[in-house]
Parts: sequence; structure tokens; C-alpha cells
Amino acid sequence: MKLSDLASKVGAKFVGDGEVEVRGVATLDEAGPTDVSFLANPKYADRLGRTKAAVVCVAEGAQTPPENPKLNLLTSNDPYYTFCKAVVVLVGHRKHPFVGVHPMAYVDPSASVGANTTIYPFAFVGPRARIGSGCVLYPGACVYDDCVVGDRVTIHANAVIGQDGFGYATHNGEHHKIPQAGNVVIEDDVEIGSCCAIERATLGSTFIGRGTKFADLIGIGHGTKIGHHGLLVSQVGIAGSTIVGDWVTFGGQVGVAGHLKIGSKVKIGAQSGVMDDVPDGTDVLGSPAVPIRDARRVYAGMFQLPELMKRMRDLESQLDELRSRLPASASEGEV
Amino acid sequence: MKLSDLASKVGAKFVGDGEVEVRGVATLDEAGPTDVSFLANPKYADRLGRTKAAVVCVAEGAQTPPENPKLNLLTSNDPYYTFCKAVVVLVGHRKHPFVGVHPMAYVDPSASVGANTTIYPFAFVGPRARIGSGCVLYPGACVYDDCVVGDRVTIHANAVIGQDGFGYATHNGEHHKIPQAGNVVIEDDVEIGSCCAIERATLGSTFIGRGTKFADLIGIGHGTKIGHHGLLVSQVGIAGSTIVGDWVTFGGQVGVAGHLKIGSKVKIGAQSGVMDDVPDGTDVLGSPAVPIRDARRVYAGMFQLPELMKRMRDLESQLDELRSRLPASASEGEV
Amino acid sequence: MKLSDLASKVGAKFVGDGEVEVRGVATLDEAGPTDVSFLANPKYADRLGRTKAAVVCVAEGAQTPPENPKLNLLTSNDPYYTFCKAVVVLVGHRKHPFVGVHPMAYVDPSASVGANTTIYPFAFVGPRARIGSGCVLYPGACVYDDCVVGDRVTIHANAVIGQDGFGYATHNGEHHKIPQAGNVVIEDDVEIGSCCAIERATLGSTFIGRGTKFADLIGIGHGTKIGHHGLLVSQVGIAGSTIVGDWVTFGGQVGVAGHLKIGSKVKIGAQSGVMDDVPDGTDVLGSPAVPIRDARRVYAGMFQLPELMKRMRDLESQLDELRSRLPASASEGEV
Repeated sequence: MKLSDLASKVGAKFVGDGEVEVRGVATLDEAGPTDVSFLANPKYADRLGRTKAAVVCVAEGAQTPPENPKLNLLTSNDPYYTFCKAVVVLVGHRKHPFVGVHPMAYVDPSASVGANTTIYPFAFVGPRARIGSGCVLYPGACVYDDCVVGDRVTIHANAVIGQDGFGYATHNGEHHKIPQAGNVVIEDDVEIGSCCAIERATLGSTFIGRGTKFADLIGIGHGTKIGHHGLLVSQVGIAGSTIVGDWVTFGGQVGVAGHLKIGSKVKIGAQSGVMDDVPDGTDVLGSPAVPIRDARRVYAGMFQLPELMKRMRDLESQLDELRSRLPASASEGEV
Repeated sequence: MKLSDLASKVGAKFVGDGEVEVRGVATLDEAGPTDVSFLANPKYADRLGRTKAAVVCVAEGAQTPPENPKLNLLTSNDPYYTFCKAVVVLVGHRKHPFVGVHPMAYVDPSASVGANTTIYPFAFVGPRARIGSGCVLYPGACVYDDCVVGDRVTIHANAVIGQDGFGYATHNGEHHKIPQAGNVVIEDDVEIGSCCAIERATLGSTFIGRGTKFADLIGIGHGTKIGHHGLLVSQVGIAGSTIVGDWVTFGGQVGVAGHLKIGSKVKIGAQSGVMDDVPDGTDVLGSPAVPIRDARRVYAGMFQLPELMKRMRDLESQLDELRSRLPASASEGEV
Repeated sequence: MKLSDLASKVGAKFVGDGEVEVRGVATLDEAGPTDVSFLANPKYADRLGRTKAAVVCVAEGAQTPPENPKLNLLTSNDPYYTFCKAVVVLVGHRKHPFVGVHPMAYVDPSASVGANTTIYPFAFVGPRARIGSGCVLYPGACVYDDCVVGDRVTIHANAVIGQDGFGYATHNGEHHKIPQAGNVVIEDDVEIGSCCAIERATLGSTFIGRGTKFADLIGIGHGTKIGHHGLLVSQVGIAGSTIVGDWVTFGGQVGVAGHLKIGSKVKIGAQSGVMDDVPDGTDVLGSPAVPIRDARRVYAGMFQLPELMKRMRDLESQLDELRSRLPASASEGEV
């Protein structure tokens, strides 16, 4: 494909030779003379001068580096998104080896599966479950009875949707199972990573909003509701009955307690433990998680603790020394 | 069903109209005029006045709220357990779409499976494994060779029982696998959540005691033994050769080191890291975990660190100022 | 088998009766009169006097304990490795109930599988994937398209190799999937535990070096590269694009951020959160992780915080008291 054609397909402008042939994509360091690459982080701008790429996606206004004058640029106000579109054009998304329900998958007769959905071997769709159109269920993906999955949802291998919530009534020292009569509802354009485990609600629905993306090994408790366009990095765990707003980002290994309210546009740093509600637009960090500015001051304090203890000992001995140079006070004299 | 019949079936008393029709279950806020709900936490008592539920399970001695005089009550000394029984009566546990071993499951010819056990497609029962009666193995549940599962055990989708323990002898920089010749023994009435991974012992058995319940994504190391009626929330990890007593509660994402002894009736707070033995009846928290009272004092101190550092600087300057107001000491004069 | 034969097979010397019959293996406490056991940790040396084992693997130079004069010894410079070899000789590795690809597994026609590889029911090998010789894929193990697995690799049940990396370009509040065009390459003699999830690279390869061993429930991000002979305990998570050297040990539940460089022979303590590069040969601990000596001083400080705060209050009141005994200073007098 010519650069000029690619630019037109991805809706970007080009600087340089529109006739240059582009075939693949690569990082700046690994790109060769028919590759498209990208510069999203200005920190790496010096790599523009050294790359062997044919074309680099850059921000509008960026200049061809003088030391690499033959480098072509694809300019836009969001160069990483432009690169993403170039990868789709040049490489494309996965082509599945078959369409529809593979004969080694199990779809219950009472379940429904939409058009253009691919269900791999060993995926399971339980009684009365509904899977939308354009979905992909990879091997071992399991959707329990009565769960509802929207359109264009991807469920990676061995992820589980709708196993029973962890709900028991403890009586005389024994844990009695409460029937988990709810389900899981996943909206359109959600992606669920491998080995995630999303519990069904006891009553009502556990809910994953439109466009939210899960990495791997994530556990979601029963009745929890996550809004639109969230990002959950691997190994996040959210307990039950928590309400999460839209555009919330969870770092890796974050834990969130149950029955909380996490606002929209919240960012939670990796390994944090969220024990309290978080208002809209707040970045939190730490275990227990607090606003990130406070967390950083606490961390700074922790690493100064050894020095702080030394200063404390110094103060105590200086104070003793000072006291020894003062005349005895009336009260001391009386003792 | 009439309220009077329900009361009789769940062994509770009712206050109000025994002829009222009850059909479903719901939370206090979502219940409608044929629903049974519950009030387990007195914190939410004000919701009794507003609920549209037909019946609410409450503690003995609770009164019909004056602002909701038609509300019927189901009274007992354990209202959450009464509610649990009402859910079983009105909603029931899952009905499986088939009984016995599904033809798309694999049960090794040398394995045994008890009566009334349901094995879903893609579940695997390995050589010489024994599964009791009344069990359910959901899709992708995998029981390795020689493991033993008691009666009425539920294993959710994609949980693994009996993969090899993580045991190697490192010699000249290479890790040599030690054959994992033991197994896993799971007693009666255990429930294992999705994507759990319970390693077999090198020698002897990894053991999960009667009535213990696992949420999802939990990892248990080789040779570890967990007592009766434990509760393990999602993403707990316990290393090998640790002995856990009865009625132990593990919060989410707790980690426990190997070769420890955790007593009975211990509670471990979420995200704790247990590095030492824990005596019976102790609540611990933190990483490293300590008794909860100590942990709370440490956390309080951590969040006061920025202020503590400021007070330290104040003290240092005040001490300097005081010193400047004292005559030079003999020793200082000599310098 | 006679002890003298076993000694010859495992390349160790024996002290005692070479004619004694050995059949099994057990811990020192559980061993019976035909069992081989081991003493790797000198801390448990007193158990030598009490064990009923026929033979114990011990370090060269160890003596038969006077209180257990009939105990036979198998001596070498690495007794745990000698024991490992004895377990292989006496117990052996798992015998699989079949060889080759089980008919209930799925291997894509375009994939290749080497000689003497066993693929269990419900394992999946995707298009163009290559599996070496002598491998074992347990039930539910899933290898996505184009991934490459070396020789003698074990993949335990429900582990996933090569699901899509967690890569999106966010534009106008929506997350657009970047095609994940790379793969995963696993070298020879690697073992991957149950329910692990190893993402494919966006471009290039996620890489697991020769001889590295994974426990269970481990997540590896896209493009991350792990060197030779690493050990990763359960529930470790490593984000994308991180480079890990050789002989690195990760404790349980460790998290590592993306785009880092972790040197060779690094040890990372359980539950640590690694946020920065780690040089070769460094032991780190804590979240954020720091060299272990520093981490221990910080922990010590944390647990002294309640006492530190008390000492601070004492100092403040003592200072007030001292000040009250001094004459007013010039500056104070001016106010």
C-alpha cells in the first residue's frame, strides 16, 4: 500500500513521499524500510532521528528530523490512535479458523447466539444465556445460565461469566448456600481477558458497562456494577455490591472492598486496597487507598522513618544535655 | 405460597397476615408486594419503613414500623439464615440441564463418580480420581489423577484440583522437577469457585476440610491443609505446607507464607500478608500481618507521618533556639 | 530396590547397610522402614534421631545419629537434589493414560505437535502454533494461534498462552483495540502452572526463557521477556514490555510494573510491588519495592510508629517545660 492511500484510510495527513510502499508495523527501534511506527511519548523523540521506519505517526506540527531527512510522517492530533488504525489496515484483527459455533463447543438448546459470533471449541453457553452478534468466545470461555452478553463482546480463553456469587448464611458454624438467582449482564463492546471470573448476582445482575476492557485473572463479586469504558488491568479484584462509575482505571492487583461507590473518572494505582467510597475524578493509591498526593507524602515519610528515628534519638539526648545545664526547678528541688 | 406456609417451612414465626401471597425474594429497596426481603444489619432499620416488600425477615422482638403498618414480618433469632431458607423454598438452587456425566465431559475409566453427581461438558476427572455423590463439576473443572472429592462438593468452571505442586530441586542453576506423588483430598460440602488452583502434595495430601467455601481465583500450595468451615474470599493465595485450623476467614487477596500454623477462628483482613504463625482466635491485618489492634495503630501512625515530620522539624528548631539562650557549657567552652 | 542400587542410580554414596530394601519416599516424620527421606535443612537435624526411615539423604560428612544407629544415609553435596533423583527412581513422574493428541482435544490442522507430546482432552492448539516434543498440555490448556512452545514444556490445566495483549488506543473516551499481531515464545523445559495467563505481544514476542518455572494464576503482560531458569510463585503479575534477566525469583503475589528492566539473579519478596528497574543480584521487598535491607528498616520503623508518636509528645512537653524555666529572650520580650 502507498503511504498516500494509508493516510487517506486512517484520516491523517502525511509529510514526505506519498508513493512510498508501507507493509507492516513495528516499534521505532525495530522498524524496517516498509514499516509504519509511532511516537506517542515525546520522551522518545530522539529515536525519530535514528529509526529505519518508512513512516512514523506523530503529533500535528512535528517536523522531519534533520538527521533523518527521508523519514515520512503521518500527522494527526492523536498519533497513537492513528497508529492503531494503521495496524488495523495493514495487519488486521485475528481471522478465526471458522465461523459460528464450533462442533466441539457446547451451546445449550435454550440459549441464543447472534449472527457473526464465533464460539471456539470447549466454550460453554448455558441454559437461556444470550450472546449477541459479532462476539468471540475463545476456548474454555464459560457463560453460565441466564447471563446476557451484548454485541461485539470478546471473552478470552478460560474466562468465566456467571458462576455463583460467594453468598452464605452462617448458622451454628456452618455456611448455608444462598441460591444465586441473579445473572451477569455484559454490554456491547466489552473485552474480558483470560481466566477472569465474574460472579452472578444473588438477586438482580452483576453488570459490566459498554466498552469496558478487562485484562486477565480479574475477579468481580456478585452484584457489582461497573460503568462504561473502564479499564481493569490484570489481577484486579472487586468484592460484591460495589458500584463503579464510567471511565474508571484500575491498576494491576488492585483490590476493592464490597458495598462501595467508586465515582467516574477515578484512577486507582496498582496494588491499592480501596476501603472507602471514592469521589468522581479522584486518583487514589495505597493500601488503604487515599488520594494520590496524600499517599505520596505517606510513602515519603515511610522511607524517611529510619532517619526520623535517628533524629528523634538525637533530640532526646540534646534535650537531656540542655536540661543538665539548667538550674533545678522548684518542683525538681522538692523531690 | 402463603406466608403462613413459608413460615412453617423455614421454621420461623410470622407477625401480620399469614394469608398474604409470597412468590419471590428481593432486597429491601427493590422488593415488590409479593417479595420476601431481609434486614440483617440494624444499620438499615429505617428502610423497613419504606420497603414495598410483602414480608421482611427480622430478628425476634422487632416491631412492625408505624409508617409501614401493613408490612409482615418473619421473625427468628437469625434473620439472614431464615431469609436464606426462604430463598431456597421460593427460588431454589440451580436445576441442571441434565444429570450424570455429560458426553462432552471426560471421566477416566479408572475414576469413580458417585450417585446424583452432575459433570458438565469439558470437565475432566483423571485416572483413579474419586468424586462423591451429589457433586457438581461445572464446565472446565479439572480433577487430576488420584484426587479425592467428597459428597455434595461443587467445583465451579475452570477450577483445577491437583495440578503438580511447585517443587524443584535446584542444582547447578537448573530446577529439577520433584515428582508430585501426593494428591488433593476435599471433604464433604466444600464449594470451590471459578479458576481456583489447588496443588497436589509432593507426598501425602493437600487437604480442604468439610464445609469450607472458596470464592474465585484462589491458589493453594502443595501439602497445605485447611480445616472445617473456612471462608476464603477471591484471589487468596496460601503457599505450601501451611496448616490452617477450623472456621478461618481469609479476606480478598490475602497471601500466606508456607510452613505456617494458622489457628482456628482466625480472621485475616483483605490484602494481608501473613509471615508468621497466628494463634487461635486472633484477627490479623496488614503486610506483614499483625494483630488488628496493632495494625490499626501502625496505619494511624503512617497517615500522621507528614505531620510527624513537621513536628520533628519544629522541635529541632525550638531546641536550637533554646540552646542559643543558654550560656555556653563548660565542654562547649573548651572546644 | 536395594540401597546400594539406589545409591548407584542417583550418584551418591551410602553409609550403612547396602542390602536394605527401599520402596517409597516420605518426610522424616512420616517415613516407614522401607522409605527414603531427606534432611536439607540443618535446623531439623534432631529429627534424624527419631525417624523410622530406612535411608535419609544428608550432606557429605553427616554422621549416623547415636540414638538411631540402624539409620542408613545417602550422602552427597546436595542432599535435596539426591532426594529428588531418588523420588524419580522410586516413584517416577506421572504416567499419562494415553500418548499423543487425545480425540477430545483440538489441534488446528495448521498447527504442529512434536513427538512424544501428550495433549489432554479439552486442550486447544490454535492455527499455526508449534508445540515441541516431549511436552504435556493438560486439560483446558490453551495455546493461541502462532505461539511457539519448545521441547519438554508442561502446561497445566486451564493455563492460557497467547491471548491478546491489553492494548487499546483511547480516543474520544472509547478504547480502540490495537490488533495484537505478535505471539508468545516459550523455550525448552519450561513449566507453566494452572490458570496462568500469558499475553501475546502487540508486535514481536512475549518470551519465557529456558528452564523457567511458573506456579499458578500468574499473569504476564504483552511483550514482556523473562530469562532462563526463573522461578515465579503463584499469583505473580508482570505488566507489559518488562525485561527480566536469568535466575530471577518472584515471591507470591508480586506485582511488577511495565517497561522495567529487572536484572539477573534478582530475588523479589512476596507481595512486593516493583516500580523501578532492579540491578543484577539485588534482593528487593515491599510495595514500592526497595533493597531488602532498606525495606526491613522501613518495616521496623512502621511498627515503632505508635511508640515514636508517644516519644514525640514527651519531647514536646519536656521542651515546653524547659522553656518555662528559662528567662524570656530578647525577642520574646519585644512581642
